[in-house]
Order: sequence, then C-alpha cells, then structure tokens
Amino acid sequence: MHRFFMTGEPLNKDKIIIKGQDAAHIRVLRIRPEETVAVCDGKGLDHICRLIRADGREAELEIIKTEPSSAEPSVDCIIYAAFPKADKAESIIQKCVELGAAAIYFFPSERCVSRPDQSSVKKKEERWHKISEEAAKQSGRGVIPKTGVIDSFEKAVKQAADADLPLFLYEKETELSIASPLFEKGTSCKTVSVMTGAEGGFEPFEADQAKQAGMLLVSMGKRILRCETAPVAALSAVMLCTESF
Amino acid sequence: MHRFFMTGEPLNKDKIIIKGQDAAHIRVLRIRPEETVAVCDGKGLDHICRLIRADGREAELEIIKTEPSSAEPSVDCIIYAAFPKADKAESIIQKCVELGAAAIYFFPSERCVSRPDQSSVKKKEERWHKISEEAAKQSGRGVIPKTGVIDSFEKAVKQAADADLPLFLYEKETELSIASPLFEKGTSCKTVSVMTGAEGGFEPFEADQAKQAGMLLVSMGKRILRCETAPVAALSAVMLCTESF
Repeated sequence: MHRFFMTGEPLNKDKIIIKGQDAAHIRVLRIRPEETVAVCDGKGLDHICRLIRADGREAELEIIKTEPSSAEPSVDCIIYAAFPKADKAESIIQKCVELGAAAIYFFPSERCVSRPDQSSVKKKEERWHKISEEAAKQSGRGVIPKTGVIDSFEKAVKQAADADLPLFLYEKETELSIASPLFEKGTSCKTVSVMTGAEGGFEPFEADQAKQAGMLLVSMGKRILRCETAPVAALSAVMLCTESF
Repeated sequence: MHRFFMTGEPLNKDKIIIKGQDAAHIRVLRIRPEETVAVCDGKGLDHICRLIRADGREAELEIIKTEPSSAEPSVDCIIYAAFPKADKAESIIQKCVELGAAAIYFFPSERCVSRPDQSSVKKKEERWHKISEEAAKQSGRGVIPKTGVIDSFEKAVKQAADADLPLFLYEKETELSIASPLFEKGTSCKTVSVMTGAEGGFEPFEADQAKQAGMLLVSMGKRILRCETAPVAALSAVMLCTESF
C-alpha cells in the first residue's frame, strides 16, 4: 500500500485533501479511485483511505479507518553524529530513518573537518528533511524523524545525556561493550541516545565531558568503523535489544 | 599504526619484503626507517615490524613480534546478498568488511533487476576485492574477506544453510524476529550466515526453498529496509550477540 504524509489536519473526520507534490505523485503512481492508500499524520497515526478523486493538483480521500502506525519502534532512539565530510550525513539520515531513529542531529566536534556555515546549514537542513521524509515513506514509518544541527558539542552532550540510556561511542573505550548496557537495560528503556564521532573520532577531553554529563562511554569492538557506519550499526543494536526488530 | 597485507610468505622468520603498490604506499605515507607498522598475513596473524629501508619499489621490514590479529571477531559470519542495483554492492562490501564479515557473496534471485553477465562479473570481482582490501586495512581487520559471485540462488542457499545459524531475512516473516535465535544461540555459534534480498525482497517460493534447505526465516521488524541496509543491520546484530563488539 502506498504511503503519504499529510500536512495539516483532516478536512473533517472522514475526509482528507492532499495537495502539492503528493497529489502529483498520486497521479504519477496511477492510483485509481476506489484504491486504498495510507495517509500518515506524521505523529504516529495512519489513516487508511479510499481515493475518491485525484487530478494531479488535488486528491480527495475518504478515511476508512485510523490506526497507530505499526512500524514505529517501541523505543525513541535519537542519533547525534558529529558533522561528517561530503554527503555522508545524507546516508546516515537515510539509513537511520529506515532503522527507526526518532531523530538525527549533527553537531560540531574537535576533529570535524566539515563545519558548514550558517547559510549552508539552512540549505542542508531543507535537504535533510526531504531525505528523512523520503526514507520514512519508503520504509513505512509513522513519523518523519526530525533532522537538524545542534550548534555546539556541549549542547549536543547535554541533550543526549537526558535519555534513559545515553550511549557515547568512543573508540578508545576498551572495557565496556555497547552490548552490556543494551542487554541489561534494553527492554526497559523508553529513550536511548547514540552519539558518534566524525572521521578520526572524539578527543579524550570530549569523552570526559560526555562522561561528566552522565553518558556511558561504550565500545563497538576493535574494528575501526567509518563515521557513517557507526551510527547505523549502533542503532541496529539498539533496535535489536529493545524488541524493535 | 599503519597496516599492510603481505602477499606470499615472509622471506625468513625475521624479515618481510613488500613490493608493488604497498611499497609505493609506504613511501607516500612517509614512513621512516625504525618506525613500526603492522604487516598482516591475511590469515589472522599480524607481524609487528620495524621498517629497515624503503625506496618506493621495495620495502624491507624486520619482524619484531607476531601475534593474532586482535580485531578479528570470534564468529565467522558470511553475508549472501542478492545482486543489488548500481554500486550498492560496493557499499555492502565496504560496510560489512568493517563490521567483521568473513566473506560477502552476491547471487541472482527472482526479483533482481541487475544480473551482470560473465565479463562484467570478472571486472566487478576485481573491484570488489580491492574494496574489501581497502576496508580491511582501514578498519584493522586481520584478513581480507572474500568477495564474489555465486551463480545461482540454489547454490547460495545450499552454501548458506551450512552455517551453525543460517538466517534468511524475509520481509513477509511476521513471527520470528532475528533477535530470538541470536539471543538464544548467538554465543555458541561459530558460523552464521545472513541471506538478504534485492530491491523488492524474495519471492515466497524462494523463502520456501531456503526453509527446506534448513535456513531460519527471520524478520527485522516492520520497517522496510533497503537492500543495502539489511545486511549491515543484520551483521551488526550478529556481532552484538556473538560478543564481537
């Protein structure tokens, strides 16, 4: 079943009007009157709808039933990744949305090579939102995960430390595997945060700051993961241990 | 410490000669006499060496000590992925080598859009080997994982079914999560196989064949994963549950 995200509220409790790009998309996909599609409210509810009419600019749909989006994971896992080079942020967003992240934020860290200025951040954020929306549609998510920039390492740590299980992936941590806290507390966590470094990882003083703020420094083994692989692997581990697979 | 893979055997038990590209690379990296590097035999042993001399065409190294490559996982996990479109195979290889796969094979399946012919397979296999080698060096692996093509679905299933834990990722499986067998048997497995579909997944008759051959049909949750995301996520789950993180 094709999925769309609605903007705004239903016209009334039985009817939805879709305009703009999605209306054009309904035409492109050649969805016919009487066919059913899912229109997601972006907050975790799916309206299962019957198409009444569509002319490419506007589509009218009748709500048959409304149900919680079944694909949403039970855990809210937010990814905090240090700005990576080139288009790796886009790859991180796409994969993490598929895997069930609640949000994906990027922040500057000591070893970041890439530090976009304010004007390019705005452009990037628009593009990231589009990638998140596309990935959410494609993977059947019930929400469009938020994406954006947190403008300092300190703020990112403070926010990440708030989770029930705040995981800081640190390549110099040799004692505590990410497996330990996940196996121990995974199923009881409502919120998890995963913080990962840029190319070259984190500086020791950054790891100290994260620890001071209450984050758990964890290892993902002895193999050095690329900055775009680590969040995806860690999120997979979180989903596995929170019964979200 | 920089890592290189040797070809052939050490000259004698104390000495290694590196030729070709790696010798040139030692020069590019400006590694100086007396500096130490790791020369991996590609079978799981690291020779920690002191550089004696290097002229760009040949480098002579003295073996200080030889030890098992510490970054090799305890489990042999082989990835079997249906031919994906475009350059996704390369991304799958790169990420799976970092995460610790023992080998990555591609096979044709019913819904594969891409079916490279024999001449292009040869070129691809050469390129895949290079990507595997680069990823192995970068991530600190002790072996260069094998990559290649298995020329039929039946052969791939037969080979994959041989593992202690043969996992077949099937998007229509709704009962058994990949978590169940991994939590139950993960630490006792020496070999795991992970079989994933192309864009569009597997046909029901393919899932039946895999089941008949002894593979476990498992789900990775209700979110639809891209064909290049599924092997990476599944391998992360395997590494987590086999104490390889």
